[in-house]
Amino acid sequence: MKYGYGVDLGGTTVKLGLFTEDGRMIDKWEIDTDISGNGRNIPGDIGRSVLADMQKHTFQKSDYLGIGIGIPGQLWEDGTASAVNLGWDHQPLVSELQELTGLRVAGDNDANTAAMGEYWMGGGKGYRSLVLVTLGTGVGGGIIIDGKCLRGAHMAGGEIGHMPVNPTETRQCGCGNRGCLEQYASATGAARLAMEALASSPEPSTLRSAGKVDAKALWDAVKTGDCLAAEIAGTFCDYLGRGLAMISSTVDPEVLVLGGGVSRAGQVLIDMVTEKYKKYAFNACKNTPIVLAELGNDAGMYGSMANLL
Amino acid sequence: MKYGYGVDLGGTTVKLGLFTEDGRMIDKWEIDTDISGNGRNIPGDIGRSVLADMQKHTFQKSDYLGIGIGIPGQLWEDGTASAVNLGWDHQPLVSELQELTGLRVAGDNDANTAAMGEYWMGGGKGYRSLVLVTLGTGVGGGIIIDGKCLRGAHMAGGEIGHMPVNPTETRQCGCGNRGCLEQYASATGAARLAMEALASSPEPSTLRSAGKVDAKALWDAVKTGDCLAAEIAGTFCDYLGRGLAMISSTVDPEVLVLGGGVSRAGQVLIDMVTEKYKKYAFNACKNTPIVLAELGNDAGMYGSMANLL
Repeated sequence: MKYGYGVDLGGTTVKLGLFTEDGRMIDKWEIDTDISGNGRNIPGDIGRSVLADMQKHTFQKSDYLGIGIGIPGQLWEDGTASAVNLGWDHQPLVSELQELTGLRVAGDNDANTAAMGEYWMGGGKGYRSLVLVTLGTGVGGGIIIDGKCLRGAHMAGGEIGHMPVNPTETRQCGCGNRGCLEQYASATGAARLAMEALASSPEPSTLRSAGKVDAKALWDAVKTGDCLAAEIAGTFCDYLGRGLAMISSTVDPEVLVLGGGVSRAGQVLIDMVTEKYKKYAFNACKNTPIVLAELGNDAGMYGSMANLL
Repeated sequence: MKYGYGVDLGGTTVKLGLFTEDGRMIDKWEIDTDISGNGRNIPGDIGRSVLADMQKHTFQKSDYLGIGIGIPGQLWEDGTASAVNLGWDHQPLVSELQELTGLRVAGDNDANTAAMGEYWMGGGKGYRSLVLVTLGTGVGGGIIIDGKCLRGAHMAGGEIGHMPVNPTETRQCGCGNRGCLEQYASATGAARLAMEALASSPEPSTLRSAGKVDAKALWDAVKTGDCLAAEIAGTFCDYLGRGLAMISSTVDPEVLVLGGGVSRAGQVLIDMVTEKYKKYAFNACKNTPIVLAELGNDAGMYGSMANLL
C-alpha cells in the first residue's frame, strides 16, 4: 500500500490529509495560512507540517507517492505559483516543497482539484467524466474527462461561472463582463435575485421577516412551501439549468455534480434544477444525472491526492 | 513512409483520399452513396473502391495504416454504425470493411472527423487544442484536446449548435428545443434573420432586389457596404460570438476554427465575430484567435486519415 498527502491551500487555512492510494483518508489537520510577506512562508509551513507528520509514521520514504496540492490560483509549468489572495506572483512552490520533504509534488488549481476529488471518491465516483459546478460566493467549475482534468489553453477550462447567459444584463460581473452565470447562480446571485423579487412583488413571504436574505434563507423558505421563495429559486435554477445544458452541449459529461455552499440546499435544488435542465438540454443529454457533491470541504484534499496517482 | 485511406461518407457521395502519414494527399476520388436497401451496399462499395485503388499501387499491405472513415451518425464501440440519412441502424461497418480489405478500420462521427482534419493539417495546425464550429445548414462542432477528440458520454461532445443561447425564443429548433445557437448562426438562421429584418425595417438595402436572400447574399451585401446587411450580420455574429465565448469558458481551446458554407464569407466574418466574441469572452480567453477552416470539403478525409495515426 502506498500513501500520499493531499493538501488544499486556502486563503485562511491549509487543509492537509494523509491518504492511502485506494482513497481512504487516514488523518487530516489544518494549519493557518500565513499571508504575511507576500505569503513567502507558506511553502515552508506546509513542508514542515508534512515532515512532522511523516515522523509520526513508520512508513519508508518509498511508501509515499508524494504531496498533491491545490492552490487558489495558477500553478505554472515551471513549478511556480501565482495567487492574488496569497500575494504570490510566480512563487517557487514545487521546488521548495520537494527540497524540504524529499517527496514528489504535483499541483493544480483548486477548482480543478475539487473536481478531481469528487471524480475519485465523491459524487462522481464510478463515472468516467464529470463536470463539477461549485455554487459558492461565485460559480466555479472543473472538468474531468477519462480521469484527466481539462485545464484549457489559458487555464480557463471549466470557468463556467463566466459563461455569458444573459445578453441583456446591464450590471457588471466581477470579471468586467455583463450577464455571466455567476451573477445569478451563486450565493451572491441568489441573494440579489431574492432582494429584487421582494422589492418588486407585493406577495407575502417568510423571507420578508428573515433577518438576512441570503441563499440559505431562500432555500429554507422554499422547503417550508413559501411561494415567492419557490419562484425566486425557480429563476435561480433556470439560469443554472441553462448553464448546465450549455456544458452538456460542449463537454457532454457522464454526470453533472453540484458542490459549494449553495448545494447544501440538497435534494430540492437537484430536483428543481434537473427540471429546468431537461427543458434546455440537447436530446442526447437530457438524462445526464445531476447529483450533489459528497466530499464538502475535503474535496480539495482528495483531489490533490488523486493527482498523485 | 506509411500510407492510409481517409474516407468521408456523406448522404450523396463518398469522398476517398489516399494520404501519406505526414499529411500529404496523394489522390482523391468520389463514389456515389447508394442508400437503397437501407444503405446495405455502402460498406461493400467503399471496400471495393479502396481495394481497386490498392491494386494501382505497389505498396505492401504493411505499408498501409488502414482506413479511417467519418460517418454522418454514430459509430458504436462494437464497430456498427447508425445514421438516419443512410438508413443505418447498427449496420456492421468496421468488420465488413476489414474483411473486404484486410486493413485496420477506425471511424468517428463526421463533425469530429472534420475537427480532427483541421487540427492535423488545416486552420488548427500547430495548435494543441481547437474547437471547430461548422456553420452550414445547421451548426456542428468538434473538440480536439491534445490530439484527442472529446466525444462526450452520449456522443454529444461539440454539439454546440444546440447550446441554448436565447431563452425567450418561441420558435422550435429542429431538435425540439427553443433558442438553440443554430437557429441563428447557421445558413438557415442567417437567411431567416435577413428576411425578418427586411420585413420589419423600411431601410433600403441591396438585399431587397437580390433574387434569393440567403447567407451568401447577406455577406455579399455586407462586403458592398450595405448598412442593413451589416446590421443583420452583426446580429448573426452577436449570437455566434456569444456561443464561442461559452465554448471558451468551458473548454478553453487554443484556437477557434470556423468552417462550413457560411465561413466562405471569409475575413469579414472573422473580423465581425471576433469583435463580438471579445465582448462576451472571459478575460483569460479574450485573445483566443478565431480563424477560418482551411480544408473545405476535404477536412473529413484528412481527419479520417489522422484518426489512423
